[in-house]
Amino acid sequence: MVCGKCRVKIMEGSFPKEDIVSSMSHLSPHEEKEKEFFEAKDDAPDMRLACAARLKGDILVFVPEASRTGQQVVSKAAGEIDVEIKPAVKKYYVELNAPALEDALGDYERVRDALLKEHGVEDIVIDFKALQVLPDILRNSNWKVTVTLWYNEIIRVQEGNVETNIGLAIDVGTTSIAGYLTDLNTGDVLVTESMMNPQVSYGEDVMSRITYCMLNEETGLADLRKTILEGLNTIIENAAKKAEISTDDISEITLVGNTAMHHIMLGINPEYMGVAPFAPALHRFIDIKADRFGLNILAAGNIHMLPIEAGFVGADNVGCLIADAPHKRDEMTLLIDIGTNGELIFGNKDKLISCSCATGPALEGAQIEYGMRAAPGAIERIRIDRKTHEVTYKVIGDENWSDGKRNMEAKGICGSAIIDGVAEMFLAGVVIKSGNFNPDFKHPRVRKNKKNIPEFVIAWKHETSINEDIVITLVDVRAIQLAKGALYSGCQIMMRKLGRTSFDRLAVAGAFGSHIDKIMAMAIGMFPDCDLDKVEYIGNAAGDGARIALINTDIRDEVNDIATKIEYVELALEEDFNDRFGEAMQFPHMYDKFPNLKGILPEE
Amino acid sequence: MVCGKCRVKIMEGSFPKEDIVSSMSHLSPHEEKEKEFFEAKDDAPDMRLACAARLKGDILVFVPEASRTGQQVVSKAAGEIDVEIKPAVKKYYVELNAPALEDALGDYERVRDALLKEHGVEDIVIDFKALQVLPDILRNSNWKVTVTLWYNEIIRVQEGNVETNIGLAIDVGTTSIAGYLTDLNTGDVLVTESMMNPQVSYGEDVMSRITYCMLNEETGLADLRKTILEGLNTIIENAAKKAEISTDDISEITLVGNTAMHHIMLGINPEYMGVAPFAPALHRFIDIKADRFGLNILAAGNIHMLPIEAGFVGADNVGCLIADAPHKRDEMTLLIDIGTNGELIFGNKDKLISCSCATGPALEGAQIEYGMRAAPGAIERIRIDRKTHEVTYKVIGDENWSDGKRNMEAKGICGSAIIDGVAEMFLAGVVIKSGNFNPDFKHPRVRKNKKNIPEFVIAWKHETSINEDIVITLVDVRAIQLAKGALYSGCQIMMRKLGRTSFDRLAVAGAFGSHIDKIMAMAIGMFPDCDLDKVEYIGNAAGDGARIALINTDIRDEVNDIATKIEYVELALEEDFNDRFGEAMQFPHMYDKFPNLKGILPEE
Repeated sequence: MVCGKCRVKIMEGSFPKEDIVSSMSHLSPHEEKEKEFFEAKDDAPDMRLACAARLKGDILVFVPEASRTGQQVVSKAAGEIDVEIKPAVKKYYVELNAPALEDALGDYERVRDALLKEHGVEDIVIDFKALQVLPDILRNSNWKVTVTLWYNEIIRVQEGNVETNIGLAIDVGTTSIAGYLTDLNTGDVLVTESMMNPQVSYGEDVMSRITYCMLNEETGLADLRKTILEGLNTIIENAAKKAEISTDDISEITLVGNTAMHHIMLGINPEYMGVAPFAPALHRFIDIKADRFGLNILAAGNIHMLPIEAGFVGADNVGCLIADAPHKRDEMTLLIDIGTNGELIFGNKDKLISCSCATGPALEGAQIEYGMRAAPGAIERIRIDRKTHEVTYKVIGDENWSDGKRNMEAKGICGSAIIDGVAEMFLAGVVIKSGNFNPDFKHPRVRKNKKNIPEFVIAWKHETSINEDIVITLVDVRAIQLAKGALYSGCQIMMRKLGRTSFDRLAVAGAFGSHIDKIMAMAIGMFPDCDLDKVEYIGNAAGDGARIALINTDIRDEVNDIATKIEYVELALEEDFNDRFGEAMQFPHMYDKFPNLKGILPEE
Repeated sequence: MVCGKCRVKIMEGSFPKEDIVSSMSHLSPHEEKEKEFFEAKDDAPDMRLACAARLKGDILVFVPEASRTGQQVVSKAAGEIDVEIKPAVKKYYVELNAPALEDALGDYERVRDALLKEHGVEDIVIDFKALQVLPDILRNSNWKVTVTLWYNEIIRVQEGNVETNIGLAIDVGTTSIAGYLTDLNTGDVLVTESMMNPQVSYGEDVMSRITYCMLNEETGLADLRKTILEGLNTIIENAAKKAEISTDDISEITLVGNTAMHHIMLGINPEYMGVAPFAPALHRFIDIKADRFGLNILAAGNIHMLPIEAGFVGADNVGCLIADAPHKRDEMTLLIDIGTNGELIFGNKDKLISCSCATGPALEGAQIEYGMRAAPGAIERIRIDRKTHEVTYKVIGDENWSDGKRNMEAKGICGSAIIDGVAEMFLAGVVIKSGNFNPDFKHPRVRKNKKNIPEFVIAWKHETSINEDIVITLVDVRAIQLAKGALYSGCQIMMRKLGRTSFDRLAVAGAFGSHIDKIMAMAIGMFPDCDLDKVEYIGNAAGDGARIALINTDIRDEVNDIATKIEYVELALEEDFNDRFGEAMQFPHMYDKFPNLKGILPEE
């Protein structure tokens, strides 16, 4: 009822389409909350929430792409990473002498001695679960076994010579989860598996989930934890299935996520991170046995939860830190990770500071009228002709741009196209500096919806597969303004904190970031002005960081150290934050601030 | 059906007492196996197995002491131990500064820093479960907390200043379990709690339980493990209740048990220890988190399973090693731990060897016709007049010896009195060297039972509370002969192995050992002949060892080292074992072998 992620469209049924809640309807009437939801959204009258509407007879339903959980184009694709292979988990093949009366050494001691003698591994201990099956495996294999070590601990013993050595890096975002099944011998990603974060049913953003925990003292945290663990276990199962391995073959998981996700996954009350002074339960990384944690990989395997930086700068940002390594650079880097929250790091090897901006999920295409995830049918690029004001666009899964006639099978608009669309509407004069629709702009594509809210048609009904026009409304524009305003003012304050007016690199992380058109982002003022070639997309750096930590243990220690040293800046406590934010919500007709955009922005 | 531990006596009911299985009976008829059991035992006709007989109406039942699980006189009482208090678990009180915006350090880091600064504890990590509740506890306590450390790991944080620091040492015997709830600050035993090992329903001895595992491949081991864990959890619960603490207040458990118990408790297939070369799954100690192990103490607390020596010389014997410390002595010590199995250690600080003797449970009063545990009503001492051959005896709970007239409320015979009784029967000439009843010995107390087996009356019906005579049968004498023969021949072979014909000390461990009359034991040839003042009862050394390991971690490491160095002697592989055993089963009319007993033994 809160999130609307299960909106479905009622296509057919034995009722008048105009009155789907009549006594003839095959559906239950709207509940109060459902009504409120749709009134607020001004949604089409034939939309219902699948979680609330109850069937009373046959109906035909269309499930909009945004409400589907499968089939997402993996926007969090794994990037190339170049790092020494030095995983925590290693495999060793040993051939043992069978025990004899004159050599009745224990099984564990026999394995331990062989590992020391043949591979030079010292101080070996054994996990309880690995020990439980050790005698049977040794004897069934005729004493030829492969031992899996996590550091110096035996976590598994397998019959014969087994080289397969697999781990899983998982990036838990507020909105989506991505898992990278990784070959620990080579660092190669074998399978990328992603899904919506199932916690969205408890609220779209971090604060609403923290609130849920607070309001449901008894079970709130447990509910949320159970939900995310189920999601993670689904990722594990699906990834294993695709790679044709057993889930027991996954020996370790590295986990990143923002601080709220981090706490909830660990089963820690996240409430205190919602209020000043935002102290987290712990900064440092922590390793937890998979069976105690509740994830269905090798029971004796470990979950390595990466460290977090501060109350709202989590392990996902640490992932970015690993991937981009600003702490190793001379250049002043402004690192921006755009997810449901925007997290910023600024500085270089001498000093790093961080902050978190409440961007909301709009930049990911969520809570946008026709917003959807980056999946086939999603509009991903939009251009508006400066003279005719006609629109052309590109849809994921179709190589050619639209021509205004062809049915593009468009279903909605994904994150990158929202930026494009709003930027182009601004550049073409559809909206003005304040974000309001230009009252002087007349065009068949501009109109008002039933609630009297202005909207701009991107794709006509005949071009879509949803049998209606796809539009960007003033409400959508406002959501983008809020998001980009939060980011921009965050960047400003960070720079001021270090006494800088510029930076050498602008590293944009996040699945979404990788698809933004730099010029478009600059045009609406998402980032401070700079030479466009200073802007670098570093992909899903949080996930990359988790993958790097999975295959190189030196980096775990290194980043554990750095993460706790980064100074966190609480934006809301800056005296002029509100003013800055308000100003940053405007579109940037300010050539003094954006000299690099001269010629791109419309003349004032 | 196998063990007969649930024998009950049918006292009243609406049926002829002579025919309790008639159609008028309020009980189901005997099942085939039950019939076999009672035929073999030649039990009273009004005895039934509670596990087999089904009620069909009202009856009055007497539950013999031997079938009761509560109320046992704690025979495994905790001895005095003198050891430096250096437990793995320690408590530290700290007062912290609340976090502030300029000091938003994580909660764990805040506690860690305080422990380092105020108590000098370094390299502190935190357990997952302790971390989960850390933020709430810190804030609820106004930042004044007591931290429980296991070595350098935080396993609990409590509000305010809490000094209570409690652990539990458990000795898991084949037949019984004893737990010692211990104050970790002082080493004092707060509560001693014991019970029958509930695994007895799967077989009385170790081999029959191993066999159960082998015959029930799917669930056998899991069944046995579940059963023992339930037993241990009952001990935990009862001990906590008596001490008026929460089970969460128990921070660590040390566990000893023979190798089969050790493996089964750990969930390791014990099958390979039943056959040569008897290699165990591991020798060294292992620490396992209580929640992973399945014991209901503090979830983040640890179960410290002591090391084992060899296939049949387990952690219980290591307990004895700790308690008696023969490895620190110059004198050659013969250490005998008598439980359901007899385990021997022989040697001194230069070298130690060990072996295991299959004594069976007879020495503990089990599988003896009127055998029972050492509980009120049990006959604990027996003397037979050499001239009149009249019997006097002492009952637990009664200060005075019997006079042949008084009702002693005797219920059965416990382990120490079985030795006494058999020894006195031999010394008085009731039985002869071979163990057979003396055909020339005539006395009202000697008679034959329904199965034509000779028996000797210890207590007449009018002296007992069970309304029948209490006797020792030839079958009982045989069981004692087997047990003492196994022990004696084991001792002989051990001495031969180290080229010795004598020893300096005979240390007898085991709850039962503490109550044996030295002379009586020597008279039947349980131990090799020696000056009686060389015989030392060291009490329940296995349990004491577990308690020592609980309060002193140095000893854990020390004994881990020694346990793996002890050389194990497999008796069954000695060429002359059968001959030695056969000879040792005789009663010792051999003054050349027992010169010290001259004058005590009857003339040949």
